[in-house]
Amino acid sequence: MIVIRKLKQIYSSCQKYKNAGKRIGFVATMGTLHPGHLSLIKKARKENDIVIVSIFVNPSQFAPSEDFKKYPRNLKKDIVLCKKEGADIIFAPEAKEMYPAGYRTFVDVSELSQCLCGKSRPMHFRGVATVVLKLFNLVQPDTAYFGQKDAQQAVIIKKMVADLNVPVLIKVMPIVREGDGLAMSSRNRYLSPEERDEAVVLSRALKEAKMMIKQGERNTDIIIQRMRGIIMRKKIAKIDYISIVYLDGLNMVSAISDKCLIALAVHIGKTRLIDNAIIDLKKNG
Amino acid sequence: MIVIRKLKQIYSSCQKYKNAGKRIGFVATMGTLHPGHLSLIKKARKENDIVIVSIFVNPSQFAPSEDFKKYPRNLKKDIVLCKKEGADIIFAPEAKEMYPAGYRTFVDVSELSQCLCGKSRPMHFRGVATVVLKLFNLVQPDTAYFGQKDAQQAVIIKKMVADLNVPVLIKVMPIVREGDGLAMSSRNRYLSPEERDEAVVLSRALKEAKMMIKQGERNTDIIIQRMRGIIMRKKIAKIDYISIVYLDGLNMVSAISDKCLIALAVHIGKTRLIDNAIIDLKKNG
Repeated sequence: MIVIRKLKQIYSSCQKYKNAGKRIGFVATMGTLHPGHLSLIKKARKENDIVIVSIFVNPSQFAPSEDFKKYPRNLKKDIVLCKKEGADIIFAPEAKEMYPAGYRTFVDVSELSQCLCGKSRPMHFRGVATVVLKLFNLVQPDTAYFGQKDAQQAVIIKKMVADLNVPVLIKVMPIVREGDGLAMSSRNRYLSPEERDEAVVLSRALKEAKMMIKQGERNTDIIIQRMRGIIMRKKIAKIDYISIVYLDGLNMVSAISDKCLIALAVHIGKTRLIDNAIIDLKKNG
Repeated sequence: MIVIRKLKQIYSSCQKYKNAGKRIGFVATMGTLHPGHLSLIKKARKENDIVIVSIFVNPSQFAPSEDFKKYPRNLKKDIVLCKKEGADIIFAPEAKEMYPAGYRTFVDVSELSQCLCGKSRPMHFRGVATVVLKLFNLVQPDTAYFGQKDAQQAVIIKKMVADLNVPVLIKVMPIVREGDGLAMSSRNRYLSPEERDEAVVLSRALKEAKMMIKQGERNTDIIIQRMRGIIMRKKIAKIDYISIVYLDGLNMVSAISDKCLIALAVHIGKTRLIDNAIIDLKKNG
């Protein structure tokens, strides 16, 4: 496994693989890899000749007030983990080459980027879509793997790829959880031991919602109220949003039907956590 | 030469060529081809194994008030011309496949898109950048050829390609002019015979500016005033803008230096025409 830092070098390496008829699988990350990321790398390893993992804490998806500077970074450990999973290349570019002085071009998947997390993070998904498109152009993967934990991100990337005719297949893999149900996230390490215990309330609220739907509840207001109640019992928790939306358009659902997404963002102390569940009445309703 | 209408088909055809190691040259047009377009096709023919010409009147670059509906279309004649120039494929997609219901993704090269023509056509370059990126993703050209007539478009496409790491080489070819100096444009056919005669005033004003610079004038206000005077003598002409800007950033120049662009847009009757000249003091100052 090699680590590549330069844009020219990753592009020419990937072109060589492509010209040799190799299938490239790609996992885009911000590093500090956890079992959620590793599940994506494992899947990519299974399905491709070459596996490339990018590690880049993308400044354009953080607002000035957000945690760009303190976002955890641990390239040394990430290299060990990627090697263990059989990745072929880590691509770890520098911000000054990804966004040189005078950088001006952004990709906007409008509407999908303004709801849910986009409400409190208005420029976030513009930054995500832009960096993912840049990485796709550099790596030219056949298939790229994203985690369902970032549900809105997955919907937006799929939409961008379809709209812009980007020749990359997007696969979205299930959320990986801790033993008690907490969704794996690099931001979990911000939590104090006490906060860590309370953070399980996100997945517990989702579990309750799923149970209600299984028992026949279809009114989303009632479901959201119950979830809200569960979370508000925790003093340390502050709800950003709880929403039930259609999976494709991310518009609000009033009565559960077919495929929808229950998504929530909750501050546990100073740490903003997200979680979600897909409801498919045909499958698990 | 074949005409392809379907997105899947153009992509798979181009992939076959690429896998066979062929170099693809690409000319994106809105059809109604004139000698300006043909000069791009000729150049592409000279430099590539495969030449693809797209013909698509792109709705997303027209404002509702603009001439999308009446924009001239003549695919039959365009086919004859492309065949004569030795193009291999005409790609003429349908708008409903390029922008299906629920289309949401746009590419914005901010700042560069707001000045010059962007002032009176605020969404125009967003539409141009978006469709060009879509076409690049479908055709996957090695080199794409654009005309210097649309100077701002050329700057924006170059910037988008650099910023988004799009692996396409952009070549910008000189303006092709009528005998009297009028820049070739599909919109020239809107002009009445009288308007056609008067339209030469754009290139005449540029010629005067170049002469002044050759004689040592460096003050852009004085140059623009002189150009303004020449055009305003024509009753039928209404100036949209006359600007002298740096070629890369498109920001205003106060004293001519190095490489800059003199650009203007003028309404001749109801028809908005553009023209420009590049000043390179090292070459022609």
